Amino acid sequence: MRKKIISPRKFVKPSYAYLIEKKRDGGEYNEDEIRFLVDSILDEEIPDYQLAALIMAVYFSGMSAQETAIFSEEMMLSGEVIDLTSIARPKIDKYSTGGVGDKTTMVLCPLAAACGVVMPTMNGKDEEFGFSTLDKLGAIPGIKLKKDIDTFVDQLKKTGCAIIDQDPEIAPVDTTLYDLRQKTGTIPSIPLITGSVLSRKMAAGAESLVVDVKWGNGSFIKDVEQAKILARSITRVGRSMKRRCVALVTDINQPLGDSIGTALELKEAVELLKGEGPEDLKELVLKLGMEIVRLSGVAGSTLSAKQTVQRHLEDGSALQKFREMIEAQGGDASFIDDPDKLLTAKHVRKLPAPKRGYVHTINAGMIAHGVQTLATDKNGKIDPAVGISEIKKVGTQMKQGEPLIMIHYNDEERLEPALEYLKGAFRLAPKRPNPPELVVERVA
Amino acid sequence: MRKKIISPRKFVKPSYAYLIEKKRDGGEYNEDEIRFLVDSILDEEIPDYQLAALIMAVYFSGMSAQETAIFSEEMMLSGEVIDLTSIARPKIDKYSTGGVGDKTTMVLCPLAAACGVVMPTMNGKDEEFGFSTLDKLGAIPGIKLKKDIDTFVDQLKKTGCAIIDQDPEIAPVDTTLYDLRQKTGTIPSIPLITGSVLSRKMAAGAESLVVDVKWGNGSFIKDVEQAKILARSITRVGRSMKRRCVALVTDINQPLGDSIGTALELKEAVELLKGEGPEDLKELVLKLGMEIVRLSGVAGSTLSAKQTVQRHLEDGSALQKFREMIEAQGGDASFIDDPDKLLTAKHVRKLPAPKRGYVHTINAGMIAHGVQTLATDKNGKIDPAVGISEIKKVGTQMKQGEPLIMIHYNDEERLEPALEYLKGAFRLAPKRPNPPELVVERVA
Repeated sequence: MRKKIISPRKFVKPSYAYLIEKKRDGGEYNEDEIRFLVDSILDEEIPDYQLAALIMAVYFSGMSAQETAIFSEEMMLSGEVIDLTSIARPKIDKYSTGGVGDKTTMVLCPLAAACGVVMPTMNGKDEEFGFSTLDKLGAIPGIKLKKDIDTFVDQLKKTGCAIIDQDPEIAPVDTTLYDLRQKTGTIPSIPLITGSVLSRKMAAGAESLVVDVKWGNGSFIKDVEQAKILARSITRVGRSMKRRCVALVTDINQPLGDSIGTALELKEAVELLKGEGPEDLKELVLKLGMEIVRLSGVAGSTLSAKQTVQRHLEDGSALQKFREMIEAQGGDASFIDDPDKLLTAKHVRKLPAPKRGYVHTINAGMIAHGVQTLATDKNGKIDPAVGISEIKKVGTQMKQGEPLIMIHYNDEERLEPALEYLKGAFRLAPKRPNPPELVVERVA
Repeated sequence: MRKKIISPRKFVKPSYAYLIEKKRDGGEYNEDEIRFLVDSILDEEIPDYQLAALIMAVYFSGMSAQETAIFSEEMMLSGEVIDLTSIARPKIDKYSTGGVGDKTTMVLCPLAAACGVVMPTMNGKDEEFGFSTLDKLGAIPGIKLKKDIDTFVDQLKKTGCAIIDQDPEIAPVDTTLYDLRQKTGTIPSIPLITGSVLSRKMAAGAESLVVDVKWGNGSFIKDVEQAKILARSITRVGRSMKRRCVALVTDINQPLGDSIGTALELKEAVELLKGEGPEDLKELVLKLGMEIVRLSGVAGSTLSAKQTVQRHLEDGSALQKFREMIEAQGGDASFIDDPDKLLTAKHVRKLPAPKRGYVHTINAGMIAHGVQTLATDKNGKIDPAVGISEIKKVGTQMKQGEPLIMIHYNDEERLEPALEYLKGAFRLAPKRPNPPELVVERVA
């Protein structure tokens, strides 16, 4: 429920046109104005065309850290704010701007729980490339991803981890704004992204936040400098809100890990929870996991954080938490011991390298389009068995005809159009390229 | 009727989100895209929130001269385009961005007719400070300001001049866009103003255009550089549309002429049509009139243009045309010979100078607010008798207690709040100020 805060001094409501013009001319909103604006969105009083003009003005004129902090706080207060004080453990969430092949949420949530940290994960409507975490978990037979807030809190108490769909009661003003932003070219606004992330994560119960800002051809952020600006914005505004935030700027100029596809990615997540799996994902899970345990106070030093994370991956406790979480959400966790229990595709074929050379670049966005074309029917339904595996990453030496990827598919008709994207995504070159740096910057 | 132009090549309709993003990122629309956009506005297919975001993106990113020319042309073609080819005389209109005390349209329209030039004047929804030309003409008993297009053309044929309300069939897309711009802080966009002016004036039958861009505290353009940019934009885009345009950038840092108020301004217009009246207005009428006759080809040189304009003011032929125009529109023109036939106010009192000194600055915007407060009742109805006269212009030497203005009023209750504005508008100083330059720049 929205808390109506009565200002001690008299506040004369401004016109919406005035608010638009103020931002258009580079002005800074005060607390009363932001509160009025958020109330107007919640009460559906501001016409959407005026809100659209206002957010485009924000896109161009920006918002100060102070403004963004008030805006985030007010958006958080626009709906339910989950009270997790009954859980004594530290509550820390992770937010990622989204990237092709990213399975870290599925791994970090049980891993954090094993380390004694609660990650109250509601999967929001982020800009996803490829499949969302919910799509991937949806490949588990029987699993429920919608829960009411009370059941969500109960599960967090009992198992320490839960991953569910965004609840409509959480930050409803952000939901309205996000829908409008998608239609009005205002998704990439730094203060609007910042406000969206912080309001949702804080409302869902997080005390602190670890942020993974991805840049590259597999993200909607194509420019590393933009990614750094966003990382700084979220951490700085979080600080203004008296929340601790750490952000890593990470590379997504090729897919993360070796496979894409909902069941295939689930299998890879299980490998990671066993301390195995592809090197790049292992590194990212370790780095983000270390930030989580350090931010929570569970580990005091970098070394101790690393040991804590590695121990819980190696001793099977993180995997055990994953199992508990799936079962708490009604899913059949037997695929963890027997991966063949997940659906598998009828056909598997290779995409051969057209010539010898080194994998020089991979367009992760094109890969994602290819796999979506392959896996999604005309009604938007995803076939969990379909996807690609054994992706040869940048720097791999190839002979002509060796598989760049293995393609898992059921529908012959969707193969040809998918191949167009998949083939076009790889570029081979005679010289070995410099390996990309996974973590480009850490902002705290 | 909108002419649907079939492109010879295949045009794939873009999404509105794509068009918004393209402009947001500084892109330039091509002809097909602009045509599609204008069609979408006309057919009410683009949601207003997307249109609002798009025009705010235009506010920040601008439009090239080429883009603006296509946009103006397409907006012109969105409704009726009046065909005046049956009138052999040159058809030239004047557009002003609007300023306090400006009576030039009422004078220039019959003056041009006397010189053999047709000014097909439809008074649009410009940003008016003070009263509009239609408000002023409305003080004439019996006059009709709404006419259908056929009757408008007939009157132009017979008398050579007509001033009527904007017809809804003229540039309907501009009407939609203008309404949205007023609510979304996008009125001051240079390409959108340019497109609005050119589409409406050209659709109403003008072959060429004389533009008066006003800058100062009595205009919505407060900055002389912005005024120059707008003047250059209109003339340049007009040229791209193969229309000849001349623009004057003129000062409105004090009211134009000596009086404000609908009947009072009508009387001043009659003085001007007799070659008399306040010096500043006489100068502006002469300068704009010379541009009109030169652009029309009626006069070949500056000297001949000046002589032509002055002759038709002095020989009574311009005044005779004014009389004919009023009578053709059903009005009682007898006030021309007997100004007391217009309504006069019950009370006239002076606003005394609070101290001795020179009139240093006059805030024309505040003057306009003051007179509107005095003349307009709570239903928005204007009392034609009410206003101010004998305005002491910048540079006038005043003794304490001498009248800065004479106030004509009927309603005692509205006097006090009006005086607040009127008193606050004048600043006296001991030193004589430099007189402002009326015409700052000429752009052809």
